[in-house]
Amino acid sequence: MSGNPDMLAEIHGSFDRMTAMATLGASLDVVEKGAVTISLPMAPHILQQHGFVHAGVISTIADTACGYAAFTLMPPGSAVLTSEFKINLLSPAKGDRFEAVAKVIRAGKRVHVAMAEVFAITGEGRKLIAVMLATLMVVESDTGLSG
Amino acid sequence: MSGNPDMLAEIHGSFDRMTAMATLGASLDVVEKGAVTISLPMAPHILQQHGFVHAGVISTIADTACGYAAFTLMPPGSAVLTSEFKINLLSPAKGDRFEAVAKVIRAGKRVHVAMAEVFAITGEGRKLIAVMLATLMVVESDTGLSG
Amino acid sequence: MSGNPDMLAEIHGSFDRMTAMATLGASLDVVEKGAVTISLPMAPHILQQHGFVHAGVISTIADTACGYAAFTLMPPGSAVLTSEFKINLLSPAKGDRFEAVAKVIRAGKRVHVAMAEVFAITGEGRKLIAVMLATLMVVESDTGLSG
Amino acid sequence: MSGNPDMLAEIHGSFDRMTAMATLGASLDVVEKGAVTISLPMAPHILQQHGFVHAGVISTIADTACGYAAFTLMPPGSAVLTSEFKINLLSPAKGDRFEAVAKVIRAGKRVHVAMAEVFAITGEGRKLIAVMLATLMVVESDTGLSG
Repeated sequence: MSGNPDMLAEIHGSFDRMTAMATLGASLDVVEKGAVTISLPMAPHILQQHGFVHAGVISTIADTACGYAAFTLMPPGSAVLTSEFKINLLSPAKGDRFEAVAKVIRAGKRVHVAMAEVFAITGEGRKLIAVMLATLMVVESDTGLSG
Repeated sequence: MSGNPDMLAEIHGSFDRMTAMATLGASLDVVEKGAVTISLPMAPHILQQHGFVHAGVISTIADTACGYAAFTLMPPGSAVLTSEFKINLLSPAKGDRFEAVAKVIRAGKRVHVAMAEVFAITGEGRKLIAVMLATLMVVESDTGLSG
Repeated sequence: MSGNPDMLAEIHGSFDRMTAMATLGASLDVVEKGAVTISLPMAPHILQQHGFVHAGVISTIADTACGYAAFTLMPPGSAVLTSEFKINLLSPAKGDRFEAVAKVIRAGKRVHVAMAEVFAITGEGRKLIAVMLATLMVVESDTGLSG
Repeated sequence: MSGNPDMLAEIHGSFDRMTAMATLGASLDVVEKGAVTISLPMAPHILQQHGFVHAGVISTIADTACGYAAFTLMPPGSAVLTSEFKINLLSPAKGDRFEAVAKVIRAGKRVHVAMAEVFAITGEGRKLIAVMLATLMVVESDTGLSG
């Protein structure tokens, strides 16, 4: 990717430091300039009371995908922090696995805005179950944060 | 609590079925009519890349607190599902533990609206780190869902 | 449109009763099943302090487009009310005119979810300046509301 | 107000340049450090199709109150722009007049977060009809924007 040749390695390293991702079982599937996909298999330890995946867990993978999608467009040495997000849960999260597909819709100097769609995948079927809009802060390198 | 004498037991049973809560380490601290508090100790398995608690994890406890706060005001036999929420992350989530304090601000026939504040607690200090607005659906008993 | 042959006339009648639309100068451009476009010319009476169109005015046309997009998919005799929305303002609203293009992304029995994009149009140029996610209530005919 | 003795005059001047406020009939009632109230009388030109005040109009006064509440805490020479907001409409907007009461809940270097409650006032009655969370950008003086 232009602008930061080490971006891919940096994002994978950052993702690996996110212990919450390993705890949930999520993996970083696609990293492109301005677009990131994170997936999560259905598993018995991430559920809400009716046996669906918890809305907060779905939000966590969507937020992470938005954050890294934004990060791919930030200057080298930046760090990314979520300022806010909003998610609409369209259907209960049931399926074999889930994909959060994020893309940046506005890259500014100080904040980026990203959108994510979350799909539930069952066999051949792919169903949109959530949509997120997120605002991500570009945190400068002099803060001591990175990734 | 009036209206549903078994509400407290029902919410505790429902919370115990939420495997995501045990996975994160969250506990149900306070259940009152229209108000619920959930707490979460700092722990090494719920972090993002800079060592703060992941924004999605903070969202998960806030969403759960909003959901049960709404559930306390629903008719017996109902179930609750999150329709949508929005969260502003005000400061990075660092501290000894975290409390999500939710209260219902509008209880309607079909949807409830709740607000949650999340505090980071460090020693004697208590700092507001996030605010959520959530819309919760009242799901009727004939759907087969409960809690 | 299938399902309700009088939908188009009903939406135009409803739009004409929305005095806020005439006050702002907005018009109903496109009505399709699940998709509505509303446009607004730049005008000196709808501005904020820097001379851009007020974010609230942009929100008003986006909300209206979402509401009618949802309404096209509701049963005859229903009314539509906005439950909540969230909007990200991507760039200041300057241009010759503005278009709010809404589409429904989930039509449920009780709530619909819609997304709107708002574009600023200047000469041949078309720039995305805002994105909205909205939740709309299906209000039943026995409430006395219509449209 | 400390920090910027001319803040009050500056906000009133800025509000007076917001032609959308005069168009709707809104007035700036209270300006304190971190808190602003804007009011709006019921009027026949700001309605939606059922005769309630349009949700977008309610959003417009709430957004404006959030923006000025944030502006009171910004350095002299700054300008304020709305980055995003989310509003929950709790009840239809009917009453004699409406008050949007905003307060800042987090003032950062680059973004402020504010919350607004909107009340419908009918005779002696005062009913909460909407709640907003908003993110406001601190725009520096070198952009040429002010107020």
